[in-house]
Amino acid sequence: MKKNLLMMPGPTPVPNFLLKEIAKNPLPHRSTEFIVILKKVHEDLKYVFQTQNDVFIYVSSGTGAMCAALENILNPKDRVLCLVMGSFSQRWVDIAKMRGAQVDIISCPLGKSINPAVLQEHLNKNAPYKIITLTHNETSTGAANNLQALCPIIKESGALCVVDGISSICAMPCKMDELGIDIVISGSQKGFMLPTGLSFLALSQKAFQMHQKCIYPSFYFNFSLYKDALKKYSTPFTPSTNLIFGLHYALQFIKQKKLETLHIEHKERTLALRKSLRALGLDLVVPDDEDTGYAVTAVFPPKNIQANILREILKNKYGILIADGQKELKNKIIRIGTLGYIRNKDLIFFIQALEDTLHQLGYKFKSNIGVKTLKKALG
Amino acid sequence: MKKNLLMMPGPTPVPNFLLKEIAKNPLPHRSTEFIVILKKVHEDLKYVFQTQNDVFIYVSSGTGAMCAALENILNPKDRVLCLVMGSFSQRWVDIAKMRGAQVDIISCPLGKSINPAVLQEHLNKNAPYKIITLTHNETSTGAANNLQALCPIIKESGALCVVDGISSICAMPCKMDELGIDIVISGSQKGFMLPTGLSFLALSQKAFQMHQKCIYPSFYFNFSLYKDALKKYSTPFTPSTNLIFGLHYALQFIKQKKLETLHIEHKERTLALRKSLRALGLDLVVPDDEDTGYAVTAVFPPKNIQANILREILKNKYGILIADGQKELKNKIIRIGTLGYIRNKDLIFFIQALEDTLHQLGYKFKSNIGVKTLKKALG
Repeated sequence: MKKNLLMMPGPTPVPNFLLKEIAKNPLPHRSTEFIVILKKVHEDLKYVFQTQNDVFIYVSSGTGAMCAALENILNPKDRVLCLVMGSFSQRWVDIAKMRGAQVDIISCPLGKSINPAVLQEHLNKNAPYKIITLTHNETSTGAANNLQALCPIIKESGALCVVDGISSICAMPCKMDELGIDIVISGSQKGFMLPTGLSFLALSQKAFQMHQKCIYPSFYFNFSLYKDALKKYSTPFTPSTNLIFGLHYALQFIKQKKLETLHIEHKERTLALRKSLRALGLDLVVPDDEDTGYAVTAVFPPKNIQANILREILKNKYGILIADGQKELKNKIIRIGTLGYIRNKDLIFFIQALEDTLHQLGYKFKSNIGVKTLKKALG
Repeated sequence: MKKNLLMMPGPTPVPNFLLKEIAKNPLPHRSTEFIVILKKVHEDLKYVFQTQNDVFIYVSSGTGAMCAALENILNPKDRVLCLVMGSFSQRWVDIAKMRGAQVDIISCPLGKSINPAVLQEHLNKNAPYKIITLTHNETSTGAANNLQALCPIIKESGALCVVDGISSICAMPCKMDELGIDIVISGSQKGFMLPTGLSFLALSQKAFQMHQKCIYPSFYFNFSLYKDALKKYSTPFTPSTNLIFGLHYALQFIKQKKLETLHIEHKERTLALRKSLRALGLDLVVPDDEDTGYAVTAVFPPKNIQANILREILKNKYGILIADGQKELKNKIIRIGTLGYIRNKDLIFFIQALEDTLHQLGYKFKSNIGVKTLKKALG
């Protein structure tokens, strides 16, 4: 069976050298051999999260790690501020509310990112909060927050700074320690080039201390149980051995390539794609390059062309899978992933296929202009 | 690399035809193709859990499903009764306490199972409870509870009956609907023949109604969100696509083989193993065949032989992995799994290797008596 090309915000392509690892016979999770792997993996995760803090590995989706962040710390009536710019940053609100927290929201229009001045002004009037959540890269639109501007403001307010890095870690710089972030979470099926099933959570000493005052913390995601187990490079509950076999090699690949190189590649690929889409006369959901992340690009189809028809043709004729919009953007936009193991040749293949498809659907543009612009931008 | 033989209570051997599925390129989890698989898998899980109730699939270890059961229902101060016969049934106590519940315990000596008359007497004095938890097969000792005797007593008391079937589902009969059980949970790395990473939870209408009165339910494991998504054969959060590829075929294998046949095979294998170990003059942790489950057999090594040395030789010389004891039984017993994809020839190979090892360590027994007894018992 020919492999489809996953140009999605997730799942992203899993290279064959990682699929091979995942298909190994399981090791007993308490064996010396597996503990050696867990030790290595935990050390390498610190590099990827740019931190000296502990990084926990959960068997869960990314949402599990979001729950871990809040359900280990929040008590009912605690005040939380959520910076919302799309459906994934909205999830912080839902989790905090289910926990009985009092939630305030700062939101911005879809496709924009949070204005640091607005945050500062809001805090001047409404601080203190126990926790402020933000999403580094909002996968539903492709807009990214400016961590360098926002995190110091949050830190200054005394609140715990909790960042969703699910689709940004590996793709975009998120220097946890340098920016003073208290919790960063991510998931395996994004920049880590693995299937879904693992999530990661890095936490500061301050976050751990706040956890110790949580009255009814989560048991499954419990920070104390994880911290204790990690002292012996173990996990409190059964880990997902086979995905960790894959993670082991994914992290070696990332280290060899260097994180900075990966970030630059993601940035160059995304900016080149955006140039190419503009050259085709298409409107981007995130109009300003200043607001964009480097993992996913959302774009409106031309007038009179339905997003779903575009996606269908790309899938059936070219084996390229891109994502639909979510909620109010369903069937209104397409979302193109440049996240993880996507190579320049994949991007060129995609733009060629997109040009063919748009042409077939009767959209007028200067022939080959997308591919030409892309190739030039990629250098 | 030669595959080790995993004769553990988990992870259990993953047959190559399932490893192959897991190593496929991921599918987008919201694609039509994946929804077709999820639909099939959810239908087949009802067969395995012997229920018409919904069965949820979580991305978590088995402990996650235990948390799901309690953290969706319990409010602080709720009364819970836990039937404890080893370290895994103790985990229900820990989860309920972390949730602020008032927990009572009925315990029995290691290697024994809960006496229904003791439960009845306790309930006469102390009922009502909101939830009563029990472990079908206690993996730390190999003892199993008699569900047919215990569940009706629990049901009669009005409490929600919550059963840990992590190591029993697929190996031992656990007829959810017939026994009136409200929640049954299990995990992928046991009778389902898969790597770790998925857990399952089947729940009755009564359990769901109780969940609706939970003040601060779990978000990640939330019954309402899962029930809503299941109406469209979907999941509220990203599922573990690649393990579900494996689950899809594991369930087909189980259906073709028939659940009853699998139960008989597990029973015959375990009883044959027990006969063989007795013939070698070894003492079983669960002395009475009436108390044993059919997934794992715990046995004391002969005097003057350390459990760990026995395990080391079996591993290094024969590639057979068996488990250590836990907590107070650490290095005091060995635990031999007959769970999942273990065949008669694996069992014979194990007893041959055990005989050789015991002989090498100076233990005296009638040569070949273990293998001879085993082969005769297997028929």
